[in-house]
Amino acid sequence: MGAINGSEFLRRINQMDTEIWLDGERIKMPISERAAFRGLIQSKASLYDLQVQPELLDEMTFESPTTKERVGMSYLQPRTKDDLAKRRKMIERWARQSYGLLGRSPDYLNTVIMSFACSTALMEGKENCFPTHIQSLYERARDNDLSFTHTFITPQVNRSQAYFETGDEPIAARIVGQTKDGLIIKGARLLATQGGLTDEVLVFSSPSLFCEPEEAFAFSIPSDTKGLRFICRESFVGGDSSFNHPLSSRFEEIDSIVVFDNVLVPWECVLFHQNTEVAMNFFTSSAFHPFTIHQVITRQIVKTEFMLGVAENLVQTIHVGEYLHIQEKIAEIIISLETMKALLDKSELDATLDASGYMRPSIIPLQVASNIYPKVNPRFSEIIQLIGASGMVTLPTERDFQSAIAPDLAHYLQAATKPAEERVRIFRLAWDLTMSAFGARQTQYERYFFGDPVRSAGHLYRSYAKDTGMGMVDSALSLAKRK
Amino acid sequence: MGAINGSEFLRRINQMDTEIWLDGERIKMPISERAAFRGLIQSKASLYDLQVQPELLDEMTFESPTTKERVGMSYLQPRTKDDLAKRRKMIERWARQSYGLLGRSPDYLNTVIMSFACSTALMEGKENCFPTHIQSLYERARDNDLSFTHTFITPQVNRSQAYFETGDEPIAARIVGQTKDGLIIKGARLLATQGGLTDEVLVFSSPSLFCEPEEAFAFSIPSDTKGLRFICRESFVGGDSSFNHPLSSRFEEIDSIVVFDNVLVPWECVLFHQNTEVAMNFFTSSAFHPFTIHQVITRQIVKTEFMLGVAENLVQTIHVGEYLHIQEKIAEIIISLETMKALLDKSELDATLDASGYMRPSIIPLQVASNIYPKVNPRFSEIIQLIGASGMVTLPTERDFQSAIAPDLAHYLQAATKPAEERVRIFRLAWDLTMSAFGARQTQYERYFFGDPVRSAGHLYRSYAKDTGMGMVDSALSLAKRK
Amino acid sequence: MGAINGSEFLRRINQMDTEIWLDGERIKMPISERAAFRGLIQSKASLYDLQVQPELLDEMTFESPTTKERVGMSYLQPRTKDDLAKRRKMIERWARQSYGLLGRSPDYLNTVIMSFACSTALMEGKENCFPTHIQSLYERARDNDLSFTHTFITPQVNRSQAYFETGDEPIAARIVGQTKDGLIIKGARLLATQGGLTDEVLVFSSPSLFCEPEEAFAFSIPSDTKGLRFICRESFVGGDSSFNHPLSSRFEEIDSIVVFDNVLVPWECVLFHQNTEVAMNFFTSSAFHPFTIHQVITRQIVKTEFMLGVAENLVQTIHVGEYLHIQEKIAEIIISLETMKALLDKSELDATLDASGYMRPSIIPLQVASNIYPKVNPRFSEIIQLIGASGMVTLPTERDFQSAIAPDLAHYLQAATKPAEERVRIFRLAWDLTMSAFGARQTQYERYFFGDPVRSAGHLYRSYAKDTGMGMVDSALSLAKRK
Amino acid sequence: MGAINGSEFLRRINQMDTEIWLDGERIKMPISERAAFRGLIQSKASLYDLQVQPELLDEMTFESPTTKERVGMSYLQPRTKDDLAKRRKMIERWARQSYGLLGRSPDYLNTVIMSFACSTALMEGKENCFPTHIQSLYERARDNDLSFTHTFITPQVNRSQAYFETGDEPIAARIVGQTKDGLIIKGARLLATQGGLTDEVLVFSSPSLFCEPEEAFAFSIPSDTKGLRFICRESFVGGDSSFNHPLSSRFEEIDSIVVFDNVLVPWECVLFHQNTEVAMNFFTSSAFHPFTIHQVITRQIVKTEFMLGVAENLVQTIHVGEYLHIQEKIAEIIISLETMKALLDKSELDATLDASGYMRPSIIPLQVASNIYPKVNPRFSEIIQLIGASGMVTLPTERDFQSAIAPDLAHYLQAATKPAEERVRIFRLAWDLTMSAFGARQTQYERYFFGDPVRSAGHLYRSYAKDTGMGMVDSALSLAKRK
Repeated sequence: MGAINGSEFLRRINQMDTEIWLDGERIKMPISERAAFRGLIQSKASLYDLQVQPELLDEMTFESPTTKERVGMSYLQPRTKDDLAKRRKMIERWARQSYGLLGRSPDYLNTVIMSFACSTALMEGKENCFPTHIQSLYERARDNDLSFTHTFITPQVNRSQAYFETGDEPIAARIVGQTKDGLIIKGARLLATQGGLTDEVLVFSSPSLFCEPEEAFAFSIPSDTKGLRFICRESFVGGDSSFNHPLSSRFEEIDSIVVFDNVLVPWECVLFHQNTEVAMNFFTSSAFHPFTIHQVITRQIVKTEFMLGVAENLVQTIHVGEYLHIQEKIAEIIISLETMKALLDKSELDATLDASGYMRPSIIPLQVASNIYPKVNPRFSEIIQLIGASGMVTLPTERDFQSAIAPDLAHYLQAATKPAEERVRIFRLAWDLTMSAFGARQTQYERYFFGDPVRSAGHLYRSYAKDTGMGMVDSALSLAKRK
Repeated sequence: MGAINGSEFLRRINQMDTEIWLDGERIKMPISERAAFRGLIQSKASLYDLQVQPELLDEMTFESPTTKERVGMSYLQPRTKDDLAKRRKMIERWARQSYGLLGRSPDYLNTVIMSFACSTALMEGKENCFPTHIQSLYERARDNDLSFTHTFITPQVNRSQAYFETGDEPIAARIVGQTKDGLIIKGARLLATQGGLTDEVLVFSSPSLFCEPEEAFAFSIPSDTKGLRFICRESFVGGDSSFNHPLSSRFEEIDSIVVFDNVLVPWECVLFHQNTEVAMNFFTSSAFHPFTIHQVITRQIVKTEFMLGVAENLVQTIHVGEYLHIQEKIAEIIISLETMKALLDKSELDATLDASGYMRPSIIPLQVASNIYPKVNPRFSEIIQLIGASGMVTLPTERDFQSAIAPDLAHYLQAATKPAEERVRIFRLAWDLTMSAFGARQTQYERYFFGDPVRSAGHLYRSYAKDTGMGMVDSALSLAKRK
Repeated sequence: MGAINGSEFLRRINQMDTEIWLDGERIKMPISERAAFRGLIQSKASLYDLQVQPELLDEMTFESPTTKERVGMSYLQPRTKDDLAKRRKMIERWARQSYGLLGRSPDYLNTVIMSFACSTALMEGKENCFPTHIQSLYERARDNDLSFTHTFITPQVNRSQAYFETGDEPIAARIVGQTKDGLIIKGARLLATQGGLTDEVLVFSSPSLFCEPEEAFAFSIPSDTKGLRFICRESFVGGDSSFNHPLSSRFEEIDSIVVFDNVLVPWECVLFHQNTEVAMNFFTSSAFHPFTIHQVITRQIVKTEFMLGVAENLVQTIHVGEYLHIQEKIAEIIISLETMKALLDKSELDATLDASGYMRPSIIPLQVASNIYPKVNPRFSEIIQLIGASGMVTLPTERDFQSAIAPDLAHYLQAATKPAEERVRIFRLAWDLTMSAFGARQTQYERYFFGDPVRSAGHLYRSYAKDTGMGMVDSALSLAKRK
Repeated sequence: MGAINGSEFLRRINQMDTEIWLDGERIKMPISERAAFRGLIQSKASLYDLQVQPELLDEMTFESPTTKERVGMSYLQPRTKDDLAKRRKMIERWARQSYGLLGRSPDYLNTVIMSFACSTALMEGKENCFPTHIQSLYERARDNDLSFTHTFITPQVNRSQAYFETGDEPIAARIVGQTKDGLIIKGARLLATQGGLTDEVLVFSSPSLFCEPEEAFAFSIPSDTKGLRFICRESFVGGDSSFNHPLSSRFEEIDSIVVFDNVLVPWECVLFHQNTEVAMNFFTSSAFHPFTIHQVITRQIVKTEFMLGVAENLVQTIHVGEYLHIQEKIAEIIISLETMKALLDKSELDATLDASGYMRPSIIPLQVASNIYPKVNPRFSEIIQLIGASGMVTLPTERDFQSAIAPDLAHYLQAATKPAEERVRIFRLAWDLTMSAFGARQTQYERYFFGDPVRSAGHLYRSYAKDTGMGMVDSALSLAKRK
């Protein structure tokens, strides 16, 4: 099969009988026709169409070593710096197609699966670990161009440091039994973006200090597995009109809670189970972080370019580029954009081969970028609101422009350099990006993409080698020795 | 008539035949039944009901000097510091009823009208000025408890410093003619909150450097005056459910563009016209700023208390009060709240009688507060999002809690100290306040309530007496004179 | 004796034989002639001279209830709001004389002693407590116009949360014995500003969670008590020239480490000892915080006025007042200044009588002010540096202006509105305030005046009543109850 | 001659008879013995010694194409990316030797001179331009290892936008005549760091909008040219003791005003004169910015490493690494450091050959870095002060540790992990870096190194290509076209 096109994606996704709940109702198939999902599914289909365009085939795909078919480039296991650049270009092209707004474009989880397969060595010979299952999951995913969501955040009952779950009924998903056929999982996970809208769902434990064996596992199962239930939040699609809601009508990636109602996970789907040490170490030692953050930063750079474009378009529309404080605000975006680009380049420049022979981007620049972006993205949004100012509030709709009052709007809302309708379009775009429910969720999403920012900073502090500076201080102090 | 109750308000507002457009359609009466307006109109009705509750009558009303009926306290022209306190308490009670979320609760424009009437002396003997019209507008408004919107922002065609409108057809509303019956107005104004939903609309020129005589005027006319047209933006009412959208379902104050299609303004409604000097000076010299900002800061303090309550409720719900960085964030809100309260108190403490014998709150503390709030309000919103974190994203709906999956939700979304439904309620409240389209508009509204923050700071700099410090520096330098 | 003048102060301070060490040498008397202390002692003398000026006597002093002589107003135990205002005015006048730069002007510790005397009731009947000693200390201080320093910071060996001192030899000062004559104290305290330059030193324990009985005490002893040793830091007096160092030559308050080398504290000097409960509670329950912070905020307001004056003087000197970003920076100082003033006023407005009949300023506004000032003071300093820009760096000296190159300086350094020498004077003042070792220490001093800012915020969070907001949220949620 | 060692540098600098004024006196030779200059000159001598160490000769020097002697690597005109890396390594090694604290280490102006020589083509055939003089200046400097200062800031009489100098006597240095021997220059320049302490001084006009022909010139003359006068500011050398003032005793680069008292500039020293177009364009088009900023950023990275080392050393000394807010502060430094490093690497990665065949680092990443550093450097200083807290204030001196009270200090000032003397050393280092007059000047120096930050941001805004983002917005809007 190899890399699929949009129609194949649509066919496959509509064929499944996944249990998805939205606003108190179970969704009826085909999901691609449901208002809450339609725009997103079309956008994803267009990504798949893009990858099989003949003129892009070399850029977007590579030859599968097993099937010899062309498969998606985001599945490429890089062995050279050139491979890293290939991956980046593919990721960038998909991001550009969706303005960086799809946090869960398929290449994200393709990369996760690929990174797991690079690190099977870490599981060799460990108790309850199935490195061969990882390899076969990877090959199955790559050669069939499967799409995934994943879920690792446990319910937020109590965020106090001293909290342990004590009830009889599990809340966080855990192993409650096992049979000859597989593990039995019961409980919930808090957050799966695009939950129910992908072929499979990858479930794993995030590293935590106090993890019980029953919470330590990883597996991937089809979204329509019996007992698996996706409970969506309210949809933030503002409506069908791409004039009114140019972004939410196309890029709203709904989030869902995932419930495991005694789900049977077949053994062949299990990557490991009941091994707390592996649950702790696999994510910190494997290729997961370098490859995944490399994908994320690439996308976030494209999103930053887009936000810069929106900000500058507002500036030109209402002619405010002459003000120093406006120049400073746009310069702020430029500075963050170039910083992110430089850090991404440096991660490739300083890439090194790992023990398994894969070329890992250097983690420090990526970690730094992942400390920066959650802080600057909300600021970009604020800058756009500060430039648009009171003009962001009273925006007419598509139907207004088709009604009897259209001439009023055409006359009174004209901009310095643009007719009224174009001006309203760019302001609606800015509004949908930063002030609609969709836009606000985008901001929150980027703010927490890499977890709690306070902890990220602490992690960076602890993992950073400070010898160079400490050495200079020693030298300064020894010169300063009392004579 | 005097102070009205909710039913009288509803009856009057439904009786009018105002031209309101929403999403390409002209609104059919009665407007109180239209989804986009229903919640707001009910909320306003409840304010009117409150003021005539017998036990609150003394607090909420005073005796009209002309009709001897009880009339709304926000119409009181203060002559003592005690009067200022009475006004503040009334304003605060209404604000508390609506959590400070109604920027255009009736007391706001009541205060504006009242402040104009305090300063008629400034118009005495000036060309094209009708101080008696102001007085009669004030008495009519007070004794009939009229409600108002106002509009003063001109279309934002070009915000460059060097821009002048040059076309044949006016864009910004201006006087295009006058007859024995009144002035003829043509053009638009950008923004009227609750436009079309009030008895009258007060139209005046904001002070600007380059104002032509035809743009220099002030008048108040009924909302259903012929040729007057309100074009609403998209409604941000998320839906009827007060569970899902606890705030937008009740407090969404729609904004509108106001079009004057050769509107005849009868002479008795005209306050002044074609006098650019008065247009420049009335707002800076009249009682407008001290009384109006006094009302606004009172409301913003209540809103801050509410936002503090929401933040603290989140903290308690997910038990994060032990973290220093959480404590710092809440302390930030407390510091701003107490600062605003101290500045309001100081404005009353330092109040002085003006030349007409009215007790004006001191303007400097109010000006300072109006420089602070637009910066801290968006930060409150950010703090709430930072505390709620990823928990702000995946929130089920009222119908989810009524469906077959209710038991899942009840179990998996329970909080440390609360059942799931209560936890979801408080998170939905926090979301609606800060992340819905309604919430984002609230933030933008407060950010620009007092105009461009950069210019506000410049205004404060220029108007502030710096002698005390300059004197100390002179003394320090003279001591430092070379011997 | 009563309120003293400058000469009496000088005479007394030079008479003592206090053990003071500076740069490896024991200071020889008279200390008022030593370069490191001369400017400060003169400045303090001028404060004492001020208080006995006949025309200020009413403002600066009151009649001692015991001696009937005029005594310093900072010793007044306030029983009315008017008394609070009297205290404030006296404090303000002294602060104005020293531009708010003397953190330890005598009124500071006078206020501390006075506040202790207001709260003797809290010690009545408690073990090892001597409320009468407090009263007699207060009367002695007031009626003889004694000056004090105090010291409460223990050595900073290890700031980890889990640290306890374990060595044999005490590091932090503690009770190592007691005789019929008094307590024996051994160990050190980290920081006493003006240590050795006052009549007495007040020593007490700051509240801490894990305090041993031997560390729980309070007493006041003469600075020249045997075994008491003050080890000064390097002096930051830049030189004698008030042209070159207009501030450090007059206001440098040297800091010192205090060593107790088996000091005998006579029983009549002991306020309490070996009572950890009192050590914990006296400072939180007594009048200490409200009266002391009231003094501090009054001084910090004057200092802010001075810094505003310096900033505005720079602006006028180099003509940059037309720039929006300069206006914003000065407005920032104005906003902080007015905020502090409003909070101080509110603390008096909301003052209440305590159980002993003393009028305490409301603590919340003071606590808020004490959370604000440590953050804004360093920003004022930064703003002054940003306005002065590269002009802060190359500043000639007094002797340059007296030398052969004076004409060059006069010509090339002239400012828009001022001759070169005046321009250099104001820049040197700005430099000494913010960029000399003296200025940098001033900034650090204000930053830490109220202790660790992170903990101050936590303390405010915990002590603040949040009911009003929580109540509104409850109301909002109950309205939002599912129908 | 080629690359010199320290003794040759000392000999040459002491031989000159430069007119230097300090505190009203003309400095007597040899300058290397004067307290204000001694430390700096020794530090520079040690840099020269380093470059001729046999084992570093390859790294620090290259073969002069004219003399075939080894000459300093900072004079290398790069033609490949590898050349850029060689330059960077040399610059880095010198910076490391001086902890990045010497803003005017010789490689800075060597680079400037080298960059001019790369761009002589821009002067070919232009009026009053002498490209061959640039080439010979470059060769002379390189082959004799000359050291330079430069000066381009005009006196700050009035910074208002509308200011023009009108007096008869020039204030800003200008051409007042010309003879067969050369130009006559009269007037002043504001700021030359190390003015008078180098072989020559390079004088040129910075680009400005309103430049008269008489102000448009560039030349380099020996520091002891007749009529040339350097007026130093007060020295910030705290004293000789490297214990007390570990940095100012070695790295204080004094600043001076430069006066031209009818100085004759021989024609062979003139690079161009009276050509305002060249004055405007040479700096923006030549290799000046890319090569110079490349040097500066390399040094600032080393300085950042050093400041990180100081901060971390404080953290370890007083054991506060466990606190989240401390971790966040250090992480802030790390993030800035890695950002600067990534931008520097990217400037080399994206380097391109210019029209003259020289390999220029890409300017955008360098421009971004030069917008970042002036903001983060003062924050590093603040972070160090926040970590040191009250411990930064009361620091004993070298002589204290040699006196009778040494045992007290040894006992009471011991740190968790270090003896008292070491703890005091590291705190004094932190103090000298951030709180001494030397440290405060360092901060101001970095803040203004690249000129007014507000204008830098504006420049970045205007020069940055925004097409990528604008293109995405166009695409988003065209998809959003009304159907």
